[in-house]
Amino acid sequence: MALIVQKYGGTSVGDVERIKVVAQRIKNTVDAGNSVVVVVSARSGVTNQLIERAKALNAIPNEKEMDMLLAVGEQETIALTAMALHSLGVPAVSRTGAQAGIVTDFNHTRARIVEVTGGDIKKQLDAGNVVIVAGFQGIDPDGYVTTLGRGGSDLSAMALAGALKADVCQIFTDVDGIYTADPRIVKKARKIDVMEYDELLEMAASGSKVMQARSVEFARKYNVVFEVRSSFNNNSGTIVKAEVPSSLEGLVVSGVAVDKNQTKVTITGLPDKPGSVAEIFDALGKNGVGVDMIVQNIGRQGMANLTFTVAKDDAPKAEKILQGVCSDLGASVSLTGDIAKVSVVGIGMRSNSGVAATFFTALAKAGINVQLITTSEIKICVAINLDRADEAACALHTAFGLDK
Amino acid sequence: MALIVQKYGGTSVGDVERIKVVAQRIKNTVDAGNSVVVVVSARSGVTNQLIERAKALNAIPNEKEMDMLLAVGEQETIALTAMALHSLGVPAVSRTGAQAGIVTDFNHTRARIVEVTGGDIKKQLDAGNVVIVAGFQGIDPDGYVTTLGRGGSDLSAMALAGALKADVCQIFTDVDGIYTADPRIVKKARKIDVMEYDELLEMAASGSKVMQARSVEFARKYNVVFEVRSSFNNNSGTIVKAEVPSSLEGLVVSGVAVDKNQTKVTITGLPDKPGSVAEIFDALGKNGVGVDMIVQNIGRQGMANLTFTVAKDDAPKAEKILQGVCSDLGASVSLTGDIAKVSVVGIGMRSNSGVAATFFTALAKAGINVQLITTSEIKICVAINLDRADEAACALHTAFGLDK
Repeated sequence: MALIVQKYGGTSVGDVERIKVVAQRIKNTVDAGNSVVVVVSARSGVTNQLIERAKALNAIPNEKEMDMLLAVGEQETIALTAMALHSLGVPAVSRTGAQAGIVTDFNHTRARIVEVTGGDIKKQLDAGNVVIVAGFQGIDPDGYVTTLGRGGSDLSAMALAGALKADVCQIFTDVDGIYTADPRIVKKARKIDVMEYDELLEMAASGSKVMQARSVEFARKYNVVFEVRSSFNNNSGTIVKAEVPSSLEGLVVSGVAVDKNQTKVTITGLPDKPGSVAEIFDALGKNGVGVDMIVQNIGRQGMANLTFTVAKDDAPKAEKILQGVCSDLGASVSLTGDIAKVSVVGIGMRSNSGVAATFFTALAKAGINVQLITTSEIKICVAINLDRADEAACALHTAFGLDK
Repeated sequence: MALIVQKYGGTSVGDVERIKVVAQRIKNTVDAGNSVVVVVSARSGVTNQLIERAKALNAIPNEKEMDMLLAVGEQETIALTAMALHSLGVPAVSRTGAQAGIVTDFNHTRARIVEVTGGDIKKQLDAGNVVIVAGFQGIDPDGYVTTLGRGGSDLSAMALAGALKADVCQIFTDVDGIYTADPRIVKKARKIDVMEYDELLEMAASGSKVMQARSVEFARKYNVVFEVRSSFNNNSGTIVKAEVPSSLEGLVVSGVAVDKNQTKVTITGLPDKPGSVAEIFDALGKNGVGVDMIVQNIGRQGMANLTFTVAKDDAPKAEKILQGVCSDLGASVSLTGDIAKVSVVGIGMRSNSGVAATFFTALAKAGINVQLITTSEIKICVAINLDRADEAACALHTAFGLDK
């Protein structure tokens, strides 16, 4: 008998019909002899409706009140899900984040979990109940409800799985699992059966949107084995854990990730002295602009050229900030248009030479020019022209043997 | 500087525009130098929507889960109301029923308040905050949310006003106050400025629907002075308290109440021996059928005739129950059609003779036949033909000098 934590997102519990389907799935898991803790999100759309009402009353709503407001979304779903289980004859109780002992810091609307006591969940499980817990929410040490920000329900599930030492945390979503590439871009993309936390983290950082890096990092830290799978079918999903025997897949890379929302920024004529680069990234960081793919070359006359990418949405803001900083430094900024980041990720790279050769040969054969290159122990990432992104992804997918 | 508890019902906080109006009214009360605690209901319609979803998932939803579900309605409103006050520059914090220390028994969906600690409300008031409390909800001694049943938000307000020793509890509703009669029936009905708890209780029992008897009883028990007034205008309402100097209004009766939802039940041939009447009312009571206007006469041959009224909705159920009991007793039941109860209520009756004479003279002059009569210290109530009810109410309203 295993202890399983299941997490269902807003689409999976979007209306009473969907909740019935979720309840049946939970019942099947119970009937198979498992103890089950379920984490649910608000019904899809509910959180946005609440935010709309708040904004209609106050342009900048108080964050503590915002959490009081938003917490109702999940509270509704836990009660409805428990009722649906009762209809199927499955004993179940609902618990808010506070009741489940999900204790956070005081950062309302974006709280971080500091402790998970589990409340009376173990007792309820021992009594034969399914425990339905409100995701996305916790309680601060003063007893006020907090919310965890984007991806919060996944995080709730991971945290409970860790605290309860669950055998697995199943993240039910609207896709079948993690794919070797985005199936809309690479037709031959296929589902990955098993992968390591680090791979998924690199893929998330490289544009894969299935899981927020934050939840994966949490799972890695507390060694929570999780499975990403679909709530619309019974297919097994992708298992993510600490170590996967390299022979298991027999492949050097696990996947190809594409991020089409990047803009390349080039700064030329930067004085090559300590502190000038720091000044630039400090200004951006303070204004919440994240940077990626940083490359620096020394040009002529002791001047440096610095290139990096920013998210396309941040580009206008970044340009304004950089114009200020660069005019002080005597350098000049140019945003040289939108580019795509294409990455291959795989723990097999650690022990394999020749990965770079395969990578750049594939792009060269396809006649694709590379503008920037960055690498990590388990990733190679390049910036290329946006209109060649899909082609590059397909070429790499084939070159690394990921096609079926 | 007074401490005022204000209660706004579902219609008053029905949407963001109405919440803005409520916030402005609260601000006006604060600006006048008062400390204010506000109790709000769920937005009108929200509770019904939640119940609908619950019923779609489970015909008989678990009551604990029902409370978990229903509590979200008020939790939404408190947060939105606090945000609306912030927009007007008024410091405000929201508190759930649990946080406000409204402790109830374990009877989920119809809990009774056993204690009101007030939580940190006094501290928040001292810090200059308006405190917005979720009505209709509390917490059981095990820490699970409960709801108080019908009229629960009024009860929350009364309970907080009592616990905090507020100067007045203002119940904002969609009418201007308590009227001498239903203005739809008696055109010359006018608002009562001040009245005693007992009068309002008798009027509630006699068909006046403005306040639930339960809240009025609570206010009487804890001596909470309250005012029933409209959230749609700034008119003063009706003050209800323990004692009103009889000279204040100079009238013997305060109001005329009409209840058109009554059916008369007659049982004939009942053995006139101890226990037979008890058996009948016991059977009805156990099945949740309330009775009123009980009259018994001894007929011929030691047989008794028993007459009483039941709510029209309960009539079919009552008939079924009584047929069983009466066949055992050898008596026969007849439901002799729908009647109206018309009552006059007034504390002035205590010290005035001649009230009965005025009452029956007025009806006699109007040619209205009386079927049943019951009286209390401050009420005379008759059952008459349904189609003469409005006429009777107008005649009595005039006879007792209630017309302007």
